[in-house]
Amino acid sequence: MQAKDEAGGGGQEAQGEVGITYDRDSVEFARLLTFTDGLFAIAMTLLVVDLTVPVIKDTHSVHELADALGDDSATFVSFFISFAVIGRYWVAHHSFFSQLARIDRGIIELNLLYLAFIAFLPFPTALLGRYFENPLTIVIYAVNVAVVSGMELVLFSRAQNHGLLKRKLPPDVYRYGAMMSLSPVIFFALSIPVAFLSTTLAVLCWFLGLPFGVIAKRWRPEGADQLLLG
Amino acid sequence: MQAKDEAGGGGQEAQGEVGITYDRDSVEFARLLTFTDGLFAIAMTLLVVDLTVPVIKDTHSVHELADALGDDSATFVSFFISFAVIGRYWVAHHSFFSQLARIDRGIIELNLLYLAFIAFLPFPTALLGRYFENPLTIVIYAVNVAVVSGMELVLFSRAQNHGLLKRKLPPDVYRYGAMMSLSPVIFFALSIPVAFLSTTLAVLCWFLGLPFGVIAKRWRPEGADQLLLG
Amino acid sequence: MQAKDEAGGGGQEAQGEVGITYDRDSVEFARLLTFTDGLFAIAMTLLVVDLTVPVIKDTHSVHELADALGDDSATFVSFFISFAVIGRYWVAHHSFFSQLARIDRGIIELNLLYLAFIAFLPFPTALLGRYFENPLTIVIYAVNVAVVSGMELVLFSRAQNHGLLKRKLPPDVYRYGAMMSLSPVIFFALSIPVAFLSTTLAVLCWFLGLPFGVIAKRWRPEGADQLLLG
Amino acid sequence: MQAKDEAGGGGQEAQGEVGITYDRDSVEFARLLTFTDGLFAIAMTLLVVDLTVPVIKDTHSVHELADALGDDSATFVSFFISFAVIGRYWVAHHSFFSQLARIDRGIIELNLLYLAFIAFLPFPTALLGRYFENPLTIVIYAVNVAVVSGMELVLFSRAQNHGLLKRKLPPDVYRYGAMMSLSPVIFFALSIPVAFLSTTLAVLCWFLGLPFGVIAKRWRPEGADQLLLG
Repeated sequence: MQAKDEAGGGGQEAQGEVGITYDRDSVEFARLLTFTDGLFAIAMTLLVVDLTVPVIKDTHSVHELADALGDDSATFVSFFISFAVIGRYWVAHHSFFSQLARIDRGIIELNLLYLAFIAFLPFPTALLGRYFENPLTIVIYAVNVAVVSGMELVLFSRAQNHGLLKRKLPPDVYRYGAMMSLSPVIFFALSIPVAFLSTTLAVLCWFLGLPFGVIAKRWRPEGADQLLLG
Repeated sequence: MQAKDEAGGGGQEAQGEVGITYDRDSVEFARLLTFTDGLFAIAMTLLVVDLTVPVIKDTHSVHELADALGDDSATFVSFFISFAVIGRYWVAHHSFFSQLARIDRGIIELNLLYLAFIAFLPFPTALLGRYFENPLTIVIYAVNVAVVSGMELVLFSRAQNHGLLKRKLPPDVYRYGAMMSLSPVIFFALSIPVAFLSTTLAVLCWFLGLPFGVIAKRWRPEGADQLLLG
Repeated sequence: MQAKDEAGGGGQEAQGEVGITYDRDSVEFARLLTFTDGLFAIAMTLLVVDLTVPVIKDTHSVHELADALGDDSATFVSFFISFAVIGRYWVAHHSFFSQLARIDRGIIELNLLYLAFIAFLPFPTALLGRYFENPLTIVIYAVNVAVVSGMELVLFSRAQNHGLLKRKLPPDVYRYGAMMSLSPVIFFALSIPVAFLSTTLAVLCWFLGLPFGVIAKRWRPEGADQLLLG
Repeated sequence: MQAKDEAGGGGQEAQGEVGITYDRDSVEFARLLTFTDGLFAIAMTLLVVDLTVPVIKDTHSVHELADALGDDSATFVSFFISFAVIGRYWVAHHSFFSQLARIDRGIIELNLLYLAFIAFLPFPTALLGRYFENPLTIVIYAVNVAVVSGMELVLFSRAQNHGLLKRKLPPDVYRYGAMMSLSPVIFFALSIPVAFLSTTLAVLCWFLGLPFGVIAKRWRPEGADQLLLG
């Protein structure tokens, strides 16, 4: 039997609601992941749709095609940045769910909300490809990514507080995980004022997460090595 | 062996047809779900394709870009409404299939018909994004959603009457589930005349399902807590 | 161990090649189906992309929008025809694979070729939506569908002749299955000359499969009820 | 328990990092494949989006439509070439993963990088469809494909050197596999200078892999028959 009533878990759901959970080996757990992985795969592949073939006059001219593609270089950079950004979230999601013993209705719904912002990302990406120098573009992109990271934290805390993890995390590991989820929010928030000075500099802020990740490993408490929240 | 002849089930299929069923743990049951989840994921992600990058003259101007995006605000609202609508159907489908012990050819074909209207939804969504104030847009959207809810009910009653559920539901639980499936049909039908007065008001009708859902819980018979049909 | 050398199956592969097969419960069998189901789901959902929102002047006018959508009615008909056509192939694929005990490299490659023509179908569909009265449109659509049905037959005969079925079919059941796979080829081929008289009549030919399916059931040999090849 | 610390594998990861691996039968192994298969399916199906319905004046004219489609013949050729190219990589990926006993974080990340270039392929394909005679088109396509094959080799060597294969390959089989992965890099690199003489000839170079594959079988060491790296 896949669905299980959370015995004794009534205290967490104040309205007297009995929480239904689906175990790791249930069809329902698998479906949530199939759906999520499909949505990620599509969001990442749809990015290529914004790469439009340029119109040139002399169809044989290497020079003219090279120039036309060069003019669109921001679109290509945007494709690879967004593929990396969404890909990193997928790795984080993969890592997070590897810690779950079961899911509940709350995780299913929060995961949907999280996916709404993943599915939306191709739009800011297209904006970035076209109006790279516009500070507003950076703001929209940064807010979108910050919301995704924020939702990641919400999912993480739900799992910790509703007994969905294989092993409830000790407080220091939980705090470390939450910090790792929050850190991109900070770097993306930081990029917003920077965007009004220089959009290139703002985009570079987004990559501060990489050196930060290396540094943060020093503070990593024991038992946290399976967590990669991004 | 995954396929099983429905012993004694001949009475339900009048043409003497022996109904083949596929158990919950069969490859065939899994495929139906993979296919369905893939289609849902795509329909939800394709919604972003309608969000077109606006054309502005001064590419650096925050003001001009903000104005252009503001003009398209209905598109963004439509994206999130439709993501929520389709997402809610996915949750309902997930919940419904968690009650099934097996599927038959009828469920496979009815599920396809149901998916045709899920796959179609991005079109009314695009229409809504462009012609939000046009009553006909609201009518088309409402009819599409009402058909999906209607198909949900058809799937539900097939499962109940062909012995596909893990446990056949008692009449009161079945009636409650049917009512929950039908309720959006009513709210969306209601929005149609309202649309000719005000399209904004009509869209608000669609959200009457939320307070109704809360109220309906009071009438919920015991054993119905695993049903969320939307 | 999932991969298995076909002991004694060397005779079928004349070049001395040892055929590797993957059992029904292997990761590799599952992947082929995940990939196939994903491709089907996308091909069916992409059909909606061709439904373009019409441009009208008075955005509030129900009349103008209704007229504009009426002009595009062929596009909507094409959407539902193609959804039904591809959906029917999916059901047939689902039914066919439910009979397989294992797959080999040949099935994997033939299945890819089959999928190429499934993935191509949205193009003839778009053509049909725009140039419904053009006989060439009908020809292209019919040829594409006939090729898919032909490939279905190729897959079916590979399975029968390379010992991939759960139970090798008796000759009469095999012949019946082959005929069912071939029948759409005939109806679609028939529609080609008809298209030069009337394209509407030609499209009606495509649906001759439905009454034929009912009639053909009378000839159906025992044990063939699990086969639905389309 | 799905996640396993690589006991004694610390030597391979110099930073003292303990490598987490996921076994073949874990949810996490399955997810990587669902995600990958989904992305492949989408990349292959998206190719059809570039096939645009031509605009003709006399909508009933078979002649005019035939001419218009004839002008776009390069687009159709590109569709089938790219479907074959990406399909072949999928078969290779399917075959490669059938050899893996487990995956680690490295494989997950390298696989993402590999998929970025699979997801990008529809763009060079569209370019090829429009500017078939432009040598730069050939260069871009060839570089993209060569990078994919290169990444395949990186994945293969990671699996061999980090103990992820079911059975570590003997040196001669490993070398043969590496050569098979590298061979397309050579044929695609070769096509680059050829493109400046004739783009048709350059495209033909891409198919040199087919006769080479047949010849290479003669050198194939025992036990390598399950490897098809492309």
